[in-house]
Amino acid sequence: TNDIYTKGHPTGVVVGLAWTSVGGDILFIETSLSRGKGGVTLTGNLGNVMKESATTALSYLKAHAADYGITYEQLEEMNVHVHVPEGAVPKDGPSAGITMFTSLASAFTGRKVKPYFAMTGEITLRGQVLPVGGIKEKMLAAKRAGIKDVILPAQNEKDVEEINKAYIKGMRFHYVTDVSQVLGLALAK
Amino acid sequence: TNDIYTKGHPTGVVVGLAWTSVGGDILFIETSLSRGKGGVTLTGNLGNVMKESATTALSYLKAHAADYGITYEQLEEMNVHVHVPEGAVPKDGPSAGITMFTSLASAFTGRKVKPYFAMTGEITLRGQVLPVGGIKEKMLAAKRAGIKDVILPAQNEKDVEEINKAYIKGMRFHYVTDVSQVLGLALAK
Amino acid sequence: TNDIYTKGHPTGVVVGLAWTSVGGDILFIETSLSRGKGGVTLTGNLGNVMKESATTALSYLKAHAADYGITYEQLEEMNVHVHVPEGAVPKDGPSAGITMFTSLASAFTGRKVKPYFAMTGEITLRGQVLPVGGIKEKMLAAKRAGIKDVILPAQNEKDVEEINKAYIKGMRFHYVTDVSQVLGLALAK
Amino acid sequence: TNDIYTKGHPTGVVVGLAWTSVGGDILFIETSLSRGKGGVTLTGNLGNVMKESATTALSYLKAHAADYGITYEQLEEMNVHVHVPEGAVPKDGPSAGITMFTSLASAFTGRKVKPYFAMTGEITLRGQVLPVGGIKEKMLAAKRAGIKDVILPAQNEKDVEEINKAYIKGMRFHYVTDVSQVLGLALAK
Amino acid sequence: TNDIYTKGHPTGVVVGLAWTSVGGDILFIETSLSRGKGGVTLTGNLGNVMKESATTALSYLKAHAADYGITYEQLEEMNVHVHVPEGAVPKDGPSAGITMFTSLASAFTGRKVKPYFAMTGEITLRGQVLPVGGIKEKMLAAKRAGIKDVILPAQNEKDVEEINKAYIKGMRFHYVTDVSQVLGLALAK
Amino acid sequence: TNDIYTKGHPTGVVVGLAWTSVGGDILFIETSLSRGKGGVTLTGNLGNVMKESATTALSYLKAHAADYGITYEQLEEMNVHVHVPEGAVPKDGPSAGITMFTSLASAFTGRKVKPYFAMTGEITLRGQVLPVGGIKEKMLAAKRAGIKDVILPAQNEKDVEEINKAYIKGMRFHYVTDVSQVLGLALAK
Ligand SMILES: [Ca+2]
Ligand SMILES: [Ca+2]
Ligand SMILES: [Ca+2]
Ligand SMILES: [Ca+2]
Ligand SMILES: [Ca+2]
Ligand SMILES: [Ca+2]
Ligand SMILES: [Ca+2]
Ligand SMILES: [Ca+2]
Ligand SMILES: [Ca+2]
Ligand SMILES: [Ca+2]
Ligand SMILES: [Ca+2]
Ligand SMILES: [Ca+2]
Repeated sequence: TNDIYTKGHPTGVVVGLAWTSVGGDILFIETSLSRGKGGVTLTGNLGNVMKESATTALSYLKAHAADYGITYEQLEEMNVHVHVPEGAVPKDGPSAGITMFTSLASAFTGRKVKPYFAMTGEITLRGQVLPVGGIKEKMLAAKRAGIKDVILPAQNEKDVEEINKAYIKGMRFHYVTDVSQVLGLALAK
Repeated sequence: TNDIYTKGHPTGVVVGLAWTSVGGDILFIETSLSRGKGGVTLTGNLGNVMKESATTALSYLKAHAADYGITYEQLEEMNVHVHVPEGAVPKDGPSAGITMFTSLASAFTGRKVKPYFAMTGEITLRGQVLPVGGIKEKMLAAKRAGIKDVILPAQNEKDVEEINKAYIKGMRFHYVTDVSQVLGLALAK
Repeated sequence: TNDIYTKGHPTGVVVGLAWTSVGGDILFIETSLSRGKGGVTLTGNLGNVMKESATTALSYLKAHAADYGITYEQLEEMNVHVHVPEGAVPKDGPSAGITMFTSLASAFTGRKVKPYFAMTGEITLRGQVLPVGGIKEKMLAAKRAGIKDVILPAQNEKDVEEINKAYIKGMRFHYVTDVSQVLGLALAK
Repeated sequence: TNDIYTKGHPTGVVVGLAWTSVGGDILFIETSLSRGKGGVTLTGNLGNVMKESATTALSYLKAHAADYGITYEQLEEMNVHVHVPEGAVPKDGPSAGITMFTSLASAFTGRKVKPYFAMTGEITLRGQVLPVGGIKEKMLAAKRAGIKDVILPAQNEKDVEEINKAYIKGMRFHYVTDVSQVLGLALAK
Repeated sequence: TNDIYTKGHPTGVVVGLAWTSVGGDILFIETSLSRGKGGVTLTGNLGNVMKESATTALSYLKAHAADYGITYEQLEEMNVHVHVPEGAVPKDGPSAGITMFTSLASAFTGRKVKPYFAMTGEITLRGQVLPVGGIKEKMLAAKRAGIKDVILPAQNEKDVEEINKAYIKGMRFHYVTDVSQVLGLALAK
Repeated sequence: TNDIYTKGHPTGVVVGLAWTSVGGDILFIETSLSRGKGGVTLTGNLGNVMKESATTALSYLKAHAADYGITYEQLEEMNVHVHVPEGAVPKDGPSAGITMFTSLASAFTGRKVKPYFAMTGEITLRGQVLPVGGIKEKMLAAKRAGIKDVILPAQNEKDVEEINKAYIKGMRFHYVTDVSQVLGLALAK
C-alpha cells in the first residue's frame, strides 16, 4: 500500500523515518517554494522540537548557501513551505533534521533525491549529525517500504549492527558525521 | 432541508464531506477574494490541522499557479478568506484538503464547481491525495444531500466497495491519486 | 428600561437578538470608523466564533463593496471598530452574523437602520443566511423591547410559527435566505 | 491617607470608582502622550474587559476627534499610554469606560479635570453611558476620599436614591446618558 | 559576598530592594542602550506587573524627556534593554518602579547613581510614588549589603519608624512623593 | 563517545556545562550568521530563562560592539541564530550566559575558541559574571569529556576547592568577575 511512496519523487520531497509507540514508519518531508519575501511556513501537525529542527536546517542551508550554488536573492525572494503529510498524526522530535535539510536543499537546487532513499538524523547548526533513537524499528519500516539506501548518523552504526541481518537484507547503510556528506549521497546527478 | 445546498454554487464554493461522532454530513468550503496584499483569513471554528490543510492547499496552488493561469500579481494583490459555515460546530482534520484546494482554485480562476458534486481527501504539499476516514458515513450523507458525483482518494476505493450498493445507487465515484486530477473532474467548463 | 434602545439609532448601530441560559435578550452591534489603514478591532467580551462572524461579515462586504457603493479607498483608509456593549457579559456564537453585516454596511454607507428593527441569522462567506437557535426566546425579548420588525433566516420560519400568536402580536417577520436581501429591508431611505 | 489624590490633578488624570469584594475604592486613570506613531499601551494589571473599555473609549474619541478640536495628525503622531496605578491589584470590568474617555480627552486637549471630581459608567462605541454595579459602595468610597462631584449613568439614579442621605451629604450627582455630556461637566475651563 | 554590588556602578545600574517569602534582598536593575529603532526588551524572569512597571517608567521618562535633556532622536534611535540579574529567581510586583525609572534615566543621561544608594517605590504614569510592602525586611537587607542611603515613598515613613533604630543605624532615608524628586537625590553630579 | 566534541570547533561553537537531575554534562552553544535584517532565532528546546540569557548576552555584545571590532552594520545586516543541540532534551536556566556571549562573539569576530575549553556562568547586562549551581557535577563532566580549561565565576572558586583534587587533575580553572575577561582567555589568536 505504500508503493506510491517508493517511486522517484519530485524535487523537495524526501523520505524520513519515524519511530512511534507502535513501531517504525516512513514519513515524507515536502518542501515547496513560491515567490514571496522569505516567509517560512511549517505544517503537518508538528511539535515545537520538530519545527525547531526545520528552522535549524534552514539556517544551516542559508549560512552555507554559496556552497550549494544558492544565492541570497533566491532565499530572499521565495517563500518556503515545509510540510509533513498525514495531518491527523502529531509528529515531534529532532530526528528528521537531515531529512528537512535535504528537502530544503533539493527544493532550492532543483535536484531530486535518488529513488528508494531514506534518511534519519538530528542536525545541529554547525552541521553535525547527531544520533537518534528507534534505529531498529526505523530500518524495518524502511525495508517494508522498499527503501534500498539509508543515511544514518555514524554514532548509530552500532544500533544497525545489532539488527538481525536477515531483516535488512539488500539495504545499504551510509553513515555520516556531518551534514555536508548528505547531499552527495542522496541527490541524483 | 439541505436542498439549498445542492443547486449550483457561486465560484469559490465547494461541497465537502465530514465525519463526526454522530455520522456523516456535508459541509461547505467557501473562498472569497478581495483587494489586498496577500493576506489569508481562515474562519469557521477550525482546528489547527484543518487550518494547516488550507495553508497547504494554498501553497500548492501558489507553487502551481502558472498551470492554472493564475498570475503572481493576482496572488499578491488579493486577500484570501476561506470560511466553513456553521460556526457553532468545531471542525478539524486534514480530510477537506482537496476541497479547500478546489475552493481556492475556483475563486482564483472564476470557474464554478459542477452541481451535485462533492469531494474528500487529504492534500499534501506536492499534490498527492491521501486516504481519509469515515468513507461509508460520508457517502451516505452525500446521497442524502442529493450529491451525484464524489471525488475520493484512490486508496479509499476499497472502502466504497464495502458499502451496500443500494445505499449509493446512482452516485458516481471518481478516484484520484494526485490533486492535478481534481479540477478537470470538478470544475464546470 | 430598554426604551433608550428602541429609538432611531445612529449609523452603524443595529439591534441583534441573543439567546442565553436565562432567556432571550436584545443586544446592540455598534460599528465606528476612523481614519486609519484598514485595521479591524473587535470588542465586547466576544468569543472566537462571534469574532469570526464579524470577520466573515466584513469579508463579504469587502467582496461586494461595489454593489453597495463602497470604494476600495474607503475600506483601505479607515479603521473599523465593531463593539457589542455590556462588556461584563461574555458573548459568543454565529447568530449575530447578519447583524454585524448590517452594522458594517450602515457605517460605510452612512445609511441608518429603520427604528424598531432587529435581526438574527448566521452569515456565510458567500452570503447565505443560515438558521439559528433560540427563536422563541429571541422573539419574546424583541417584543418586550418594543421591536416591530425582525429579519430572520427562512429556515427559522417554522420556529416562529410555533410561537403563541398572542405573544408576538403586531410584529412583522421578514424571512431571508441571502444577505443581499437584508439591507433593502433594514436600511432607511 | 488618600488626600494626595484629591487635589487638582495634571491633565490626563481622572478619578474613577471601583467596586471590589471588600467594598468601594477610588482609583486613578492616567493617560500620558509621547511622540510616536499612534501606538497604544495599557498597563496596571488590567483584565481584558477593562482593556477593551479603554480601546472603545479611544475609538470613540478618534471618531469624534473633530468635535474636541483634536486633529488626525495629533492622534497619528503620538503614542498613548493609559495606566491604572496600584499594579499589585488586578482590575477588570467595563465600569471605568467614561473615566478612560475623560482621561484620554484631557490628555489630548490639555484641559484638566476639576478637583474633587469622580465618575463611573460603561461607555459604548456610539457614546451611550450604560449603568454599572456597586453604586452604593462606590459613592461611600468617593465620600471618604473627599470627592464632591460624581458623574453617573442616568440608569443608576435609582441606586443613588436608595443610599442613606446622611452618608453622601454635600455630594453632587450628575446623571448622564451620553458621553458627549461628560466633558462639559468634568473639564475645567 | 555581596560586596561586589556596593561599589560604584556603571551608568544604568541601580540597586533596588526586594521582599520575598524568605525575607528582604537587594536586587539590581540594569539598563543598556544600543543603536536601534526604539525597541524595548525586558528580561530577568519578570512577571507581568514588573514588566508593566518598566513600561510605565519608560513612558514617564519619554513624556518628560525634555526635562532631563533627552531628545526624541535619542529615544527613537536606541534600543532599550532592562535586565534584572539572577535569572533563576522569578520576580514580580510594582515596587521596583522608581528603581526602573532611575536606571533608564541614568542610561539615557550618562549620569551614574551615587554609591551605597538604593531605592524602592511604585511609580505611576504621572510620576507619583506609591507606597510598597516589606519595608522592614527591605531595610534590613539594605543594611546588610552596606547601603547608606535609601529613597522611599513618603507614605512608607511610618513603616521605617517602626523598625528598631539599632538595626538601621547610620542609614539615611529620603522620602519622596513624586518621581521628579528621585534623580536629584540619587544621581551623582 | 563524546570525542567528536573535543576537537577544535568552528567559529561560533562553544562548550558549556549543564547540570541536570542525573549529573553534569557538556553541551554546545552554536551561533550561525546569515545575511538578513538583524533577526534573532533561538532554538534547542530552550526555556524562557535560557532564552533571556541569550538575549542578554546579545545586548551586552551590541552595547560593547566597538570594543570587539564589530560594526553596527554587521549587527544590522545579519540574522543571528543560536542553537543548543540535542533537541529532545529540554534546557533552561541562566548558567550558559557567558557561553552564549562567547559563541556570539566568536561568530561575529570570526575567532575560534581554543580547543578543550569550556565555561559556565550567568551574565548580567552590565557584564558581571554571577555564580551558578552544580559546579562539582559540571567539572566532573568536563573532565570526562577531555576538557582542559574551564572559565568559572569567581564566586564559584570555593565550590571548585571542595572537589577531590584527584577527580580534576590536569584541569585549569580561570575565575572571572566580568565578562570582559572571558574572550581574552577563551578565543584563539
Ligand atoms: Ca504512515
Ligand atoms: Ca527522519
Ligand atoms: Ca450540517
Ligand atoms: Ca472533505
Ligand atoms: Ca441586556
Ligand atoms: Ca443576532
Ligand atoms: Ca486603593
Ligand atoms: Ca469608574
Ligand atoms: Ca540575591
Ligand atoms: Ca525596588
Ligand atoms: Ca549529552
Ligand atoms: Ca554553561
